[in-house]
Amino acid sequence: MEQARIVKSAAEMRNLARQGRWRGTTAGHCPAHQQANLVILPKEAAAEFAAFCTRNPEPCPLIEITLPGDPEPARSAPGADLRTDVGGYRFYRKGELVEKRGEIRDLWRDDLVAFLLGFSFTFEHALIEAGVGVRSIECDTIISMFTTNVPCRPAGRFHGPHVVTMRPIPEGQVRQVSELSGRYPHAHGSPIHVGSPEAIGIADLARPDYGGPVAIHKDEVPVFWACGVTPQAVALEARPEFMITHEPGIMFLTDLPREG
Amino acid sequence: MEQARIVKSAAEMRNLARQGRWRGTTAGHCPAHQQANLVILPKEAAAEFAAFCTRNPEPCPLIEITLPGDPEPARSAPGADLRTDVGGYRFYRKGELVEKRGEIRDLWRDDLVAFLLGFSFTFEHALIEAGVGVRSIECDTIISMFTTNVPCRPAGRFHGPHVVTMRPIPEGQVRQVSELSGRYPHAHGSPIHVGSPEAIGIADLARPDYGGPVAIHKDEVPVFWACGVTPQAVALEARPEFMITHEPGIMFLTDLPREG
Repeated sequence: MEQARIVKSAAEMRNLARQGRWRGTTAGHCPAHQQANLVILPKEAAAEFAAFCTRNPEPCPLIEITLPGDPEPARSAPGADLRTDVGGYRFYRKGELVEKRGEIRDLWRDDLVAFLLGFSFTFEHALIEAGVGVRSIECDTIISMFTTNVPCRPAGRFHGPHVVTMRPIPEGQVRQVSELSGRYPHAHGSPIHVGSPEAIGIADLARPDYGGPVAIHKDEVPVFWACGVTPQAVALEARPEFMITHEPGIMFLTDLPREG
Repeated sequence: MEQARIVKSAAEMRNLARQGRWRGTTAGHCPAHQQANLVILPKEAAAEFAAFCTRNPEPCPLIEITLPGDPEPARSAPGADLRTDVGGYRFYRKGELVEKRGEIRDLWRDDLVAFLLGFSFTFEHALIEAGVGVRSIECDTIISMFTTNVPCRPAGRFHGPHVVTMRPIPEGQVRQVSELSGRYPHAHGSPIHVGSPEAIGIADLARPDYGGPVAIHKDEVPVFWACGVTPQAVALEARPEFMITHEPGIMFLTDLPREG
């Protein structure tokens, strides 16, 4: 498995998932390419969700919307099949988790629309290459995520607060990190807040709402980015009749270059 | 009228349009803000058109998709009304122009979805500020646009070639112009071709498919950018039952900063 982290292309990784031979996290894989969040909704809800995403491009950067009923993301991964090529899926009904799945072939319907949304693994690779440590990767934990009191712009049934990721950054590197991540608007872009968790409604950095806690060293400040969990949390909250997402941490690997 | 070119905000310009007091081109107006192409389609066709736009982000950079039935672009111009705030509209049925309009209040329906798409007036302002002449503005003509032989990625009923704009650029400035426009992915970004019109299926630069011809001086090369006329041409070709667009050159003025 470890070998695959180094040598496989995105297409090869998708093919392994399709064959049921790969189910792990995509963190650290295919660093030259964009990774994507997946949300699948019936057409009826998808029209409102498309409006929600374009109204909130920081947490919901649209990579691709598929044709209703067509599981191929023809721009971001020609030939891929979104029913089989992700390493893990979650199936929800009315906001309740019904089942975790390795593929969703038999759940697919003619009215389903898939949304691929940008993901911060994309800019993390750029930070590491620039010599900025990403603690959650160093410590092999899932990045700390927090629900804030910063509301998204609502769109019909879809509304709710921003979820953010937090990375501890040495004070002297904050400007460099902001500029570097700002080059990735398709992967959440610049931080939405630096410094005061209380200012955005976060009570305790040691108790993230998703993922694990990480240490913040003496010379570091917490830096917060819009997070791709936001659209999933908002979609769940709306309790759509039918929804499928990827399993957290197991993203869709696109063929798109990281730089967009 | 000339005074308005200098002093009015985007909101003031939209308000003048809403009152029927302004119907001119938006070229040169509100240079600090993004201008947008407008395409309005029934929900049924809008799902496929959203897929088409995300598959072709160079000609179709999505600024905002509205909620079905809601004419307010809540992110790009809160409080605006897309039924009245554009200086000119075109109404099509099955691909045929039915009527030019100053407002579309009585045509609005609960199933209509509006698409706001990026437009190259946005980066032209940046070129001018950097000291690069834009000949069509200097000569007060509509920019030269050409239908190419470069196909868009199809999505359902929507397919067709790229339409491009052409600007003559001094050879020594091509790199600067490419980099500068590349900072505006929400407004077509970098050129898609430099130099040989034949290579992209253009027979005669003196005979544009849309807009007017411009002189190309001895030290200049033609530079081609993806163009927001593409999605309109493609949508028209699909002959949707009902479609409304802005009048060419009379764009929707958003409140979004030019830099995205």
